[in-house]
Amino acid sequence: MQLHDYRNLYRDNLLDDVIPFWLNHSGDAQFGGYFTCLDQAGAVYDTDKFVWLQGRQVWCFSMLYNRVEQKPEWLDFAVQGAEFLKKWGRDAGGNWYFSLTREGQPLTQPYNIFSDCFAAMGFGQLHRAIGDPEYGAIAVDTFHRILARKEAPKGIYNKAYPGTRPLKSFALPMILCNLVLELEHLLEPELVETTIASGIHAVMDEFYQPEFGLILENIAPDGSFSDSFEGRLINPGHGLEAMWFVMDMAQRKGDQALIEKAVDLTLKILEYGWDRQYGGIFYFLDVKGNPPQQLEWDQKLWWVHIETIISLLKGYLHTGDERCWEWFEKVHQYTWAHFPDPEHGEWFAYLNRQGEVLLPLKGGKWKGCFHIPRGLFQCWKTLEAIAEKRVNQLLPS
Amino acid sequence: MQLHDYRNLYRDNLLDDVIPFWLNHSGDAQFGGYFTCLDQAGAVYDTDKFVWLQGRQVWCFSMLYNRVEQKPEWLDFAVQGAEFLKKWGRDAGGNWYFSLTREGQPLTQPYNIFSDCFAAMGFGQLHRAIGDPEYGAIAVDTFHRILARKEAPKGIYNKAYPGTRPLKSFALPMILCNLVLELEHLLEPELVETTIASGIHAVMDEFYQPEFGLILENIAPDGSFSDSFEGRLINPGHGLEAMWFVMDMAQRKGDQALIEKAVDLTLKILEYGWDRQYGGIFYFLDVKGNPPQQLEWDQKLWWVHIETIISLLKGYLHTGDERCWEWFEKVHQYTWAHFPDPEHGEWFAYLNRQGEVLLPLKGGKWKGCFHIPRGLFQCWKTLEAIAEKRVNQLLPS
Repeated sequence: MQLHDYRNLYRDNLLDDVIPFWLNHSGDAQFGGYFTCLDQAGAVYDTDKFVWLQGRQVWCFSMLYNRVEQKPEWLDFAVQGAEFLKKWGRDAGGNWYFSLTREGQPLTQPYNIFSDCFAAMGFGQLHRAIGDPEYGAIAVDTFHRILARKEAPKGIYNKAYPGTRPLKSFALPMILCNLVLELEHLLEPELVETTIASGIHAVMDEFYQPEFGLILENIAPDGSFSDSFEGRLINPGHGLEAMWFVMDMAQRKGDQALIEKAVDLTLKILEYGWDRQYGGIFYFLDVKGNPPQQLEWDQKLWWVHIETIISLLKGYLHTGDERCWEWFEKVHQYTWAHFPDPEHGEWFAYLNRQGEVLLPLKGGKWKGCFHIPRGLFQCWKTLEAIAEKRVNQLLPS
Repeated sequence: MQLHDYRNLYRDNLLDDVIPFWLNHSGDAQFGGYFTCLDQAGAVYDTDKFVWLQGRQVWCFSMLYNRVEQKPEWLDFAVQGAEFLKKWGRDAGGNWYFSLTREGQPLTQPYNIFSDCFAAMGFGQLHRAIGDPEYGAIAVDTFHRILARKEAPKGIYNKAYPGTRPLKSFALPMILCNLVLELEHLLEPELVETTIASGIHAVMDEFYQPEFGLILENIAPDGSFSDSFEGRLINPGHGLEAMWFVMDMAQRKGDQALIEKAVDLTLKILEYGWDRQYGGIFYFLDVKGNPPQQLEWDQKLWWVHIETIISLLKGYLHTGDERCWEWFEKVHQYTWAHFPDPEHGEWFAYLNRQGEVLLPLKGGKWKGCFHIPRGLFQCWKTLEAIAEKRVNQLLPS
């Protein structure tokens, strides 16, 4: 395949397949918001509404409106999701519930700070589209609450006994790296800079452990390795996703050395996480080679693969490192041979180790309208930038 | 295979393989208690101590001492585990932590009432062996605390928003059915009878739903079906395990009709949960055929298979129903072809759908010294009882 074939594939899959799938199947015309539990053909099999998936879908359609085309139907679809969230999504303290009934009644308490992260991301992106100050205020207020809860994100729902084995987790600092860029237009420049600096420091100096050449999911407060189930856990997809967040931050501040470090780490994590027997990237591994606690450890997940492709393409764009392109072709081939559904459109989410579809859903409690469209967009635009660099002879053809 | 071949297989695997495996590999001579995170060869790969697995292992060695042979090494092994639990296992309120460090420091709060259930079971069985009143008091006190927490077992760690979709779960009433018989010698007879009656009612009249012919994992407080992820969930192994608890209670009160109902349900659940493509019993299914939330839904687990064999053999013993024997031979064949490890002994825990070993561990956070030895003992004794009935011509040969 030529560069423009790749670009067309990612663009067309986004605009002609994935986005129409969600537009056609996920809107709840009666109560607002989105259904995300969609079967292979797009039929709704459960009506619960998971707040982080609602926020992500608001973000997705706002982003398309802001960055692809100002289509009213995209904006309307985002706004109706945001209105549902605004009305039903928060408790009295302004924290975002984890899940709601179809009608909006709270089902699960605000124990999960990622609900807040993706609500902030959705409202921030929508504010870019229409500038409604209320949307901006919700995004900013939520962002400050996240920072305030950062040290104890699970709050009263934390089951760890205090003090015995304190650990800090990779997921939140990683997501903050992306979120702060999303909300840049709404935040004080100084807060943006300090958040970026501390995000890069957390990812590249703390959770990245040179001893293993990998990013750990959980570390001791002093940054040391914890030889426990949580401490030994590697989620290759998480690390790989974080690398393009880091590249975006590095590009913003013109730090080529940081980009190169992120590219180096992308390749290391991918070498480690790749299943040499069946292809694809494992979901979880134990850094010492022990059996991980997660029974789903060997499964191949949609988001892991599309996020990896983004990092490889951005890595290639910024450095021209041929290893990025070679790995891109390999991961691309596996991904497109296994995940997209030629019959009903969109992508399968969960494959078993052998690459067979494990659950035929297109969306559920954990998959909504987010990683695939964001990834297709990022790849499309990165492939365009690569083409432009080639035209300008800044990258070899 | 002849009846006595089966009996010898279950007995010898218990006494010559499984019990020596745990005796040789799991004792913590330095701090007391048991390691349960054992790799394929029995080496310790993690030293955390999960309270419910500690309690189960105390129970197991006490039970062997009480019902197989009064071996001092079995009793000593049980006592050292009980002493570790007595010293470190509870919070100030008498609730059992979920997990401890190797040394006994609390790691995870008492959010899980099954820690309490298996602590009570362990101390109750050990009290039968040596009559130490302190062990008896711990068992009884814990049992009363379980009853007091029954309506809200997760306490402050419950993340469900109150009132929106209240559900009650099958696991606790099911385990109480077994636990009350374990503690019968320590409890007021009236409490035993009312607990048995309410346990049978819960399992057979509430969680068993004739509409589906299956046992549901979660139902609405009024016993109705909840069309939600939790409400649609079927855990065939849970239902199958409960059926021999029910048969034990029915046998105790001489209720043949209840035994026949439990046999009928055993066969129904097994027909439903059996994987016709690869053999073995699925871990989770959605009663409406939707994708379950559990990514491990198609895996084949050790406890599901051994518990099913117990119910089939007890069903055959009590009713002579040939379908029980035919299914026993089929489940036996699958189980013994896949789970026991001919190289290092004991049984594998987690197989993928195809029957290949998914994680090579012999113990971990969820598997300890419990289901396999209990199941081997139950099968051995049930096969003996079947042989005796045949000799007395109460069952066809």
